[in-house]
Amino acid sequence: MSKFDEIMKKSGYSKATVSRVINHSPHVSDEARQKITDIMKQLNYIPNRNAVSLSTGQTKQIGIVTSATNEIILTFMNQFIDTAMDFGFQTLIYTSRGDKEIELQAFEDLRSKRVDGLVIMTCVNHPDKLKAYCEYGPIVSWQRMGNDEIPSVAMDQAQGYRLALEHLVSKGYTRIANAFGRAESLNTQSRREAYESFMVDNGLPVLREAYQYSIFSSSDGEEAMRRMASGSDLPQAVLCSNDYAAIGIWSEARKQNIRVPEQLAIVGFDDIELSRVLGITTIHNPIAEQATQAFHRLWAVLGKQELQAQQLEFQLIERSTT
Amino acid sequence: MSKFDEIMKKSGYSKATVSRVINHSPHVSDEARQKITDIMKQLNYIPNRNAVSLSTGQTKQIGIVTSATNEIILTFMNQFIDTAMDFGFQTLIYTSRGDKEIELQAFEDLRSKRVDGLVIMTCVNHPDKLKAYCEYGPIVSWQRMGNDEIPSVAMDQAQGYRLALEHLVSKGYTRIANAFGRAESLNTQSRREAYESFMVDNGLPVLREAYQYSIFSSSDGEEAMRRMASGSDLPQAVLCSNDYAAIGIWSEARKQNIRVPEQLAIVGFDDIELSRVLGITTIHNPIAEQATQAFHRLWAVLGKQELQAQQLEFQLIERSTT
Repeated sequence: MSKFDEIMKKSGYSKATVSRVINHSPHVSDEARQKITDIMKQLNYIPNRNAVSLSTGQTKQIGIVTSATNEIILTFMNQFIDTAMDFGFQTLIYTSRGDKEIELQAFEDLRSKRVDGLVIMTCVNHPDKLKAYCEYGPIVSWQRMGNDEIPSVAMDQAQGYRLALEHLVSKGYTRIANAFGRAESLNTQSRREAYESFMVDNGLPVLREAYQYSIFSSSDGEEAMRRMASGSDLPQAVLCSNDYAAIGIWSEARKQNIRVPEQLAIVGFDDIELSRVLGITTIHNPIAEQATQAFHRLWAVLGKQELQAQQLEFQLIERSTT
Repeated sequence: MSKFDEIMKKSGYSKATVSRVINHSPHVSDEARQKITDIMKQLNYIPNRNAVSLSTGQTKQIGIVTSATNEIILTFMNQFIDTAMDFGFQTLIYTSRGDKEIELQAFEDLRSKRVDGLVIMTCVNHPDKLKAYCEYGPIVSWQRMGNDEIPSVAMDQAQGYRLALEHLVSKGYTRIANAFGRAESLNTQSRREAYESFMVDNGLPVLREAYQYSIFSSSDGEEAMRRMASGSDLPQAVLCSNDYAAIGIWSEARKQNIRVPEQLAIVGFDDIELSRVLGITTIHNPIAEQATQAFHRLWAVLGKQELQAQQLEFQLIERSTT
C-alpha cells in the first residue's frame, strides 16, 4: 500500500480530501486538515510535489524558455516569477544556449505534465514546430512568433520607435542613425520600417549607410560610436536597440570629446534603472506589465478565468541626452 | 507492453543497449544505433527525458537555487549553464523569492532524482536544514555556508577588499567610507573586518559612522552619495559592495559637482562590463571561474572524476575613479 493510500485508510477521508490537504487547498474542513496532517507526520509522509496534484491536475509549475539569460530579459523574468507566485505557481527556467534539441525538452516537459504551461522568451526552433505542443497546455510568447497558435504579449516596437523619431525631429535633429539589434529579428524589421517610412514621410534623409546591427551590450555601443566617429559625417542623433547600447555610445562619445546632445543626441530603449541614473533619454517599455499579461494569458487556461488585459503603451522619457 | 519493451523485443537488443541509444551514449555500435533508431521512429517513440537514464542513473539535469535573479548572479549563472552543457547537463533555475517552502522543493527534486545535483546561489533555509539533502546527490554553494557538509566555491571577500584599501592608501586617500551590502551576510562581515583591521594596522581612522548598508543597485548608490554629500565631512574615498552601487555613486557625484577622483575616489567590486565602459576602478572578481569550479565540484561526484581546481585570485583594476 502506498503511503497515500495508508493516509486515506487511517484518516477515513477520501482521495480528493487527502489530496486537497496535501496541495494546501483551502476547500477542506479544519478538522479534516488537522487529522490528515497528523497522520502525514506520523507516517513521515513527504508529499511529492512532482506528482500531478490529484485535485487540480496541475503541477503548479510554469517553465520559461530562453536561449540565454541576460539583463534585458531579467525584468520580464522577475516580474513573471512574482506574478506566478502570487497565483501559487513556481517558475522553472529552461536555458537552451541556442540548442534546438535542448529547447525541445521544455516542450516535452509540457507534454509529460512536468510543467502546466510555458512562456517563450526567445526560441530557436521554428514556431511551426513548437505550435504542435499547444495541445498539451497553454503556451505564450514574449518574442513575436509570426503565427497565431502561440499568442504573444509582444508589443509593436514600431510604436515606440516612432515616439523616439518624433521627439528627435521636434528637437531639430534630422540626420538620424540607427544601432539595431539582430538584423533578422521581427523587432529590428519593425523598427527599420518605422524609421524608413517616418523619414520618407517627413522628407528627411534615410541614413541606410549608417545602419549598424547586433548592437546589444555597452561594449557593442562603444564600438558603434567608434565607427560613427571614424566616418566622414557624424549623424546628429542615434537611436539604439536598448539602453545598454545607448550607455556604451554615450560613454564613448564622452571619451572622444563629442558633446552630448549638442553634437550627438542619443535615445535608448526600455528605460532600465541605469538609464535613469545616467540620464539617458529613452523609450519606456512596459516589460513588467507584459510579464504580468503573459501569466494572465496562461491563467485564462489554467485557472479558467479571463483577467482584463490593460492596453500597454510605450512612452518617451526625456532626459539629458537629447 | 511499454513502447520501451517493444523496442527491446523488436530490435533484439538488451535494455542497456536500447537505453544507451535513447540517451545518446557513444558506447554503442552503429548497427545497433541504426536499428533501434529505426524502430523508435516506426513506433513513434518519444524518449521521456524525465525518466532516469537506465545506463547512467542520471537525469542530466542540475538545479540552480536562488532567491532572486539579478544582474550580479547572471555572470555566474551563464557560465555555469555553459560549463554544464559542455558536460552534457542541462540547467534548471529554481527561484524561491525568499520563500523557504518553495526553496525546499528544489531539494526535494534532488531527493526524488529529478535533478542530479544542486548549486545554491543564495538560500533562505538554514544550512543545517539543507545539509540533510547531501545524501541524495552533490550540492555545492556559491554563497558562503558556514558549514562543511555543503562545499562552497565562494572566495574570501576580505582579500579583494584589502587590495582596494592598499590601492587607495597608496594613492594618498585615508578617510575611506564603505557602502556595504546586506549587513548580516558573511561577505559583509568579512569586508567590514578587513576594513577595520586594515585601518587600525595602518593608524588610519575607522569611519564607522559612515557605514551604509543594503547598497546594491545604482539607485541605492545614488542615495548613498546623497547621504554622504549631506554630511558635514565628505570622505576622500568610498568602497562599494559592487559595481552597480559604484556607478550610482559616481553618477550622483557628477550631478552634485563633486569631482571624481579629486574630491571623492570610488572603487567598485566585481568588474562588470559597465565598470570598464564607464571607467570605474574596481576589484576583478573571477565569478565565471567560480561557476566553472562549482560545476567541476559536482562533476567530481557525478562523473567520478576530479578536475584540477585553479587557485583563483582577486585583482585590482585601476581606472579613472581613483
